[in-house]
Amino acid sequence: MAKGRVSGEITQKAIREASIRLIARHGYHGVSLRTLADEIGIQAASLYNHIENKQDLLFVLLRGIMEDLVAEVAQKVAQEQGTLSKLCTFVAAHVEFHARRQPEVFIGTMELRSLLPENRLVLVALRDRHEELLQSLVDAGIRERAFSVPSARVATFAILALLNGVANWYRKNGRHSIPDLQRMYVELTLNLLGTSPAVQELLRSRDFTQPPPAATGVKGSRRSPPAPAP
Amino acid sequence: MAKGRVSGEITQKAIREASIRLIARHGYHGVSLRTLADEIGIQAASLYNHIENKQDLLFVLLRGIMEDLVAEVAQKVAQEQGTLSKLCTFVAAHVEFHARRQPEVFIGTMELRSLLPENRLVLVALRDRHEELLQSLVDAGIRERAFSVPSARVATFAILALLNGVANWYRKNGRHSIPDLQRMYVELTLNLLGTSPAVQELLRSRDFTQPPPAATGVKGSRRSPPAPAP
Repeated sequence: MAKGRVSGEITQKAIREASIRLIARHGYHGVSLRTLADEIGIQAASLYNHIENKQDLLFVLLRGIMEDLVAEVAQKVAQEQGTLSKLCTFVAAHVEFHARRQPEVFIGTMELRSLLPENRLVLVALRDRHEELLQSLVDAGIRERAFSVPSARVATFAILALLNGVANWYRKNGRHSIPDLQRMYVELTLNLLGTSPAVQELLRSRDFTQPPPAATGVKGSRRSPPAPAP
Repeated sequence: MAKGRVSGEITQKAIREASIRLIARHGYHGVSLRTLADEIGIQAASLYNHIENKQDLLFVLLRGIMEDLVAEVAQKVAQEQGTLSKLCTFVAAHVEFHARRQPEVFIGTMELRSLLPENRLVLVALRDRHEELLQSLVDAGIRERAFSVPSARVATFAILALLNGVANWYRKNGRHSIPDLQRMYVELTLNLLGTSPAVQELLRSRDFTQPPPAATGVKGSRRSPPAPAP
């Protein structure tokens, strides 16, 4: 019994990792359950012991990524005091997540459109919650006269696009470490929000050298997603 | 003869518009040439009078979009004097293009991975040229002490991600006009580059109210691309 459960968990993990690899390369519509089973080395029929169907597989994958992002970032932000500290923590946690779990985030961006409408709504609600947290920090910073931007809403979209971009170019063995990225993106975001150099100097003294939490995503995936266009 | 050519051009346009609509909705791998022919209302076999094959159709589509972007932006930038003016023009032209030709740009981002390697190389070379133009402006601004950023390369990636984000949320009949967007993104980019408020004030007086060039992209496509995740 115990052995059955362990073996089931191993298969679940193999399905997850193979799906991410295949969907990143061929897109959701370009991957059949047969290809997935071949990649893992099991019979196509056996897949149904582990997943409902292909759409459900995608949904569970994307929902898991988004739930992790929203929860991790919100938890870290809640531990901080003051708008500026919270904002910097949001940026650092979002960037760290996007670098550490890059292949999954990449699929999340690409395949949202492949979800059935009712599944997509769940993802959009999660994403909205994340966006609202950032927007509330931008709003607070504007009220406190720490930030100066033409529109809080557009600045929120702009910051998220900027930060999400990390997943498009970050390479695990590239020239920048994750703490490097966190430091640079905090500085760029504070710049973008029109904060004064003095405030930035203060916040640049933050420590981004603590090790990131243990990765729960796919490890060792060697394939980089295509670079963004244009 | 003239009639044949005119009818051929109409079919080419119909193929182009239907491809963009269908690929945006279902992804490249999710669209068959039969579906495309049905959408236009011609026989599948007749498609081959107009296109080589499905891969070539995608390649011609994406290359055309990227060539237009690179040429339009470079031409406008070349007409300006001075790093700051050139940088602002780059931003304004890139944003205007991404809003005006949003459905095509969206496909360009999503389907780069669906190109055959030799076709993808062509697109990447075009994109690199665009990126290098921006990078050269950021480098020049740093040399002239007008910009202050942690890394010119990362700032270039960050700016492009920020600007590309426009295509994910802009709605033709939404609350912001294209000149509004241009003005806001110029301000956000100047902020991000750490320019002084005085410089920004000077540049904010630029006129973004001139009408954009005649659209060459798809008109009247009602379907919005899925919002970005996360």
